[in-house]
Amino acid sequence: MIERIVESLKKLELFFGIDENFLIEFAKKARIETHEAKEIVRRRSEKCEELLFLVEGEAVGLFTNSEGRVLQIDHMVAPKLLASAVVFSDDPKYPVDVETLKKSVFLSIDRDIFVSCLMKNERFLRNYLKYVSDAFLFITDRFYEIAMKNLVQKVCSYVLKLSEEQRSDLVVMDMSKEELSREFGVTRPALSRVFLELEKMGIIEAHGRKIKIKNGRYMKDHAQLYD
Amino acid sequence: MIERIVESLKKLELFFGIDENFLIEFAKKARIETHEAKEIVRRRSEKCEELLFLVEGEAVGLFTNSEGRVLQIDHMVAPKLLASAVVFSDDPKYPVDVETLKKSVFLSIDRDIFVSCLMKNERFLRNYLKYVSDAFLFITDRFYEIAMKNLVQKVCSYVLKLSEEQRSDLVVMDMSKEELSREFGVTRPALSRVFLELEKMGIIEAHGRKIKIKNGRYMKDHAQLYD
Repeated sequence: MIERIVESLKKLELFFGIDENFLIEFAKKARIETHEAKEIVRRRSEKCEELLFLVEGEAVGLFTNSEGRVLQIDHMVAPKLLASAVVFSDDPKYPVDVETLKKSVFLSIDRDIFVSCLMKNERFLRNYLKYVSDAFLFITDRFYEIAMKNLVQKVCSYVLKLSEEQRSDLVVMDMSKEELSREFGVTRPALSRVFLELEKMGIIEAHGRKIKIKNGRYMKDHAQLYD
Repeated sequence: MIERIVESLKKLELFFGIDENFLIEFAKKARIETHEAKEIVRRRSEKCEELLFLVEGEAVGLFTNSEGRVLQIDHMVAPKLLASAVVFSDDPKYPVDVETLKKSVFLSIDRDIFVSCLMKNERFLRNYLKYVSDAFLFITDRFYEIAMKNLVQKVCSYVLKLSEEQRSDLVVMDMSKEELSREFGVTRPALSRVFLELEKMGIIEAHGRKIKIKNGRYMKDHAQLYD
């Protein structure tokens, strides 16, 4: 098991340039947790005195409230370090609910053990600082998108981002409309209406998860990409 | 000037337990910027290769978009370290627009100089890590509030927080309704309607910026405080 975990962790940017023996020692100090699909692994506002790694499987980070509203903040595929930008606070809490999509294996490292490893290895420390900065940028960009963009802009930004990644005007969506509506914080019918509207206007052509961009100019004007 | 700046910086948690000579050296390496009230000091998505301190005055962090929508993310009173959780990213960018409310003095320290100071002083490093964790918790809480709470819940949370801070059921609001509506991402009339409604229901009594809590139970039930 340790070998499989080390192989998985190695792929994380956090461990780039880190000696394999350091990594093995690190993994040995951790606790392993296995969860079935659709389990809630951690809840927002729970105390967070650990570093949590998703080493196998797939999970999402969610905001939920008592009225049943669900907003998907992040979609995480192993290997991935989760919500670990908060551990140095005096009152560290999980910022999101963590829920598995598939059967998943997690690795939990006690905060104090992590900190002592961090202070012993400057490369590891710099990797962690970079991880935290990137996590901060990610969350503020998600916040901006949810709070400041309307649904047409969100769809245009999303499709254009895929088009850039896939280097094509014919893109394949990396999630279902169901999941996408959770990402955007809207209902499924509202999302479908926007897709239909964009098709009627001749901006896109949609077949299931495949989308053809027909008017890239319009999409760029509406995406308001800030980068 | 250097003495005034050092006096101001000393009050920041980032410099707690840090030797004064270290602080003087640090301040000497910085660039001073003065801005009048209502000036835009930095813009969201601008490259951020500095640490920025507000040493005198008052400023806000804003999300804005091309449709004129403005959402106030943070209200900052000197001394304060601004938006500096991003500097370790490979592509560090300002997460918000920074706009002065009053005439203000800023201190800008080049990222590389800051990093080298950080790596020389473990206490300073730990303070910075704590700052970043707290900033991450702050931004995710703001995000949760804006995305997941309705306006009644936002008002109840806000008034209860004031009541806790001021240890009284008779609280004085620390901002105008105008500013509060920007904080909540709603229009001024929508906010006034909620205050009127809560008054009609006998939950609060409002006189200008003074608010008396008459039904704390109702407010707690609606605030959905997670801490």
